[in-house]
Amino acid sequence: MREHIQITEVAPRDGFQILPRLIPYEEKVRFIQNLIDAGCEEIEASSFVSPKWVPQMADSEEICRYFGSQKNTIMTYLVPNMRGAQRAIEAGTRQFFVTTSASVKHSRDNLNQTIEEVMSGAEKIAQLAAQHGVECTASIAAAFGYSPDPEGVSHDRVCQIAKRLADAGFSAITLCDTSGEANPANVAELCAKVIKCTDVPIGIHLHQAGGIEFANALAALQAGVRVFEAAAGGMGGCPYIKKAKGNIATEKLVKMFTDMGYETGVDLKLIEQCAEQAKRIQAEYGTPECCTEQA
Amino acid sequence: MREHIQITEVAPRDGFQILPRLIPYEEKVRFIQNLIDAGCEEIEASSFVSPKWVPQMADSEEICRYFGSQKNTIMTYLVPNMRGAQRAIEAGTRQFFVTTSASVKHSRDNLNQTIEEVMSGAEKIAQLAAQHGVECTASIAAAFGYSPDPEGVSHDRVCQIAKRLADAGFSAITLCDTSGEANPANVAELCAKVIKCTDVPIGIHLHQAGGIEFANALAALQAGVRVFEAAAGGMGGCPYIKKAKGNIATEKLVKMFTDMGYETGVDLKLIEQCAEQAKRIQAEYGTPECCTEQA
Repeated sequence: MREHIQITEVAPRDGFQILPRLIPYEEKVRFIQNLIDAGCEEIEASSFVSPKWVPQMADSEEICRYFGSQKNTIMTYLVPNMRGAQRAIEAGTRQFFVTTSASVKHSRDNLNQTIEEVMSGAEKIAQLAAQHGVECTASIAAAFGYSPDPEGVSHDRVCQIAKRLADAGFSAITLCDTSGEANPANVAELCAKVIKCTDVPIGIHLHQAGGIEFANALAALQAGVRVFEAAAGGMGGCPYIKKAKGNIATEKLVKMFTDMGYETGVDLKLIEQCAEQAKRIQAEYGTPECCTEQA
Repeated sequence: MREHIQITEVAPRDGFQILPRLIPYEEKVRFIQNLIDAGCEEIEASSFVSPKWVPQMADSEEICRYFGSQKNTIMTYLVPNMRGAQRAIEAGTRQFFVTTSASVKHSRDNLNQTIEEVMSGAEKIAQLAAQHGVECTASIAAAFGYSPDPEGVSHDRVCQIAKRLADAGFSAITLCDTSGEANPANVAELCAKVIKCTDVPIGIHLHQAGGIEFANALAALQAGVRVFEAAAGGMGGCPYIKKAKGNIATEKLVKMFTDMGYETGVDLKLIEQCAEQAKRIQAEYGTPECCTEQA
């Protein structure tokens, strides 16, 4: 029997959020349904961020209510704070996730808080989730380094954050190569360390790095990672990081794992169709600046 | 001390040969000199193929005489047959290489010979090289499979060919993913097998595969490969294989290995400048059909 790898599709949240023109609700629903039909095991479907900050995510309640619980796909939603978590719970979500950061500067610049403030907020969200029987997971941004931060990001700090998140009740943790700086050597080393110091599943979120993201994915796989976040068509990027490229492309990652003999549950042809749809959406509702640059 | 990896730059031969418009000799010389200055340990500088078949390579004698022996770079030349080998020797080359194939169909379609005819010809070329004190190496095309061939390509056959080439006096062997079909699992397996059954250095030649070529390179590295063929700017492709994309990009491979703590002798900034030059040459002397498609 082939070993299983979980694919978490992030395009509807991480890909859509940077597109400046509002994508119609119906288009989003069709895209998410196609991802479900393609066999994605988990989907980041939307974000309960304030609609004032990110108008593109203003229909998160509707999307959450529309999809509800799916038979073979976990629907998950980003919650940036307690208010977002409360809204997500009211909309009936069964799972959501928070973002933390391992870089002092990235945390300040992107989350507008210190690492400690972010962690403390995350712990409160985990308590709220537990009270409502909602599963919650956490991402650690800048885990593989963040070059604008002169302090750097030590593996020890990432391990401490991961351990604290696991202790707080987060049921899975994703290490994010937010600025596309990872290399196979540090991916292998950090993933192995975090897997060793926690007892929850560890996932990885890789950004495009001229193709080197696939070597990073292989290194993570070899270190024991079995949850991979990816975006159909390589959608994504970060509005706050200059030249930040899209995410690792789901359809290519699925092809690589399938060719290697792993099982992802994702249908290659269907996810390739989703990638085409993602590229069309990006062209229609994006600008050249925010389009993924597959190098 | 950092472990060493050899980079063999193939753009002046493998990249230039498919460009339909003749690149001026002076432009070629400048490009090759820049590759030498960037620190490439070996360069495929030209091909002693018949100028009637490939007019782009008609200046191979001049290039060979111009560069002669370099202090820190091995200059090597493709010789497709005995006539080409004789011409290369007359032009004063110190090293050349031949191409063999592990696929019955690829051999017939591309080399116009059976595998046995190709091997027998290669052995005669090795004898000629030995008589003249010229180093000779060999490539094995289609080593990682060749989907148009219904017979397939077994690892056993590749090992037999590699062993026979080593016995014939070829001092290094390169396994080629000619049609971009390799995946990290079969790269790891085949490279380990070939390294075990021969006692000459084993290199790998990877084509673009949407980025998965970097995972393949990592797998080869882990299996013990320390010679990597690559083309600045990802130049290349194969005129005989539909949709065959360019080669793995030297500048990205160097970045990955350097970030991982290996030493290649290649200056990243200078090789990135070579990549820009390669892209300019490709745009100027190629057509949209023969340009690399970095996916």
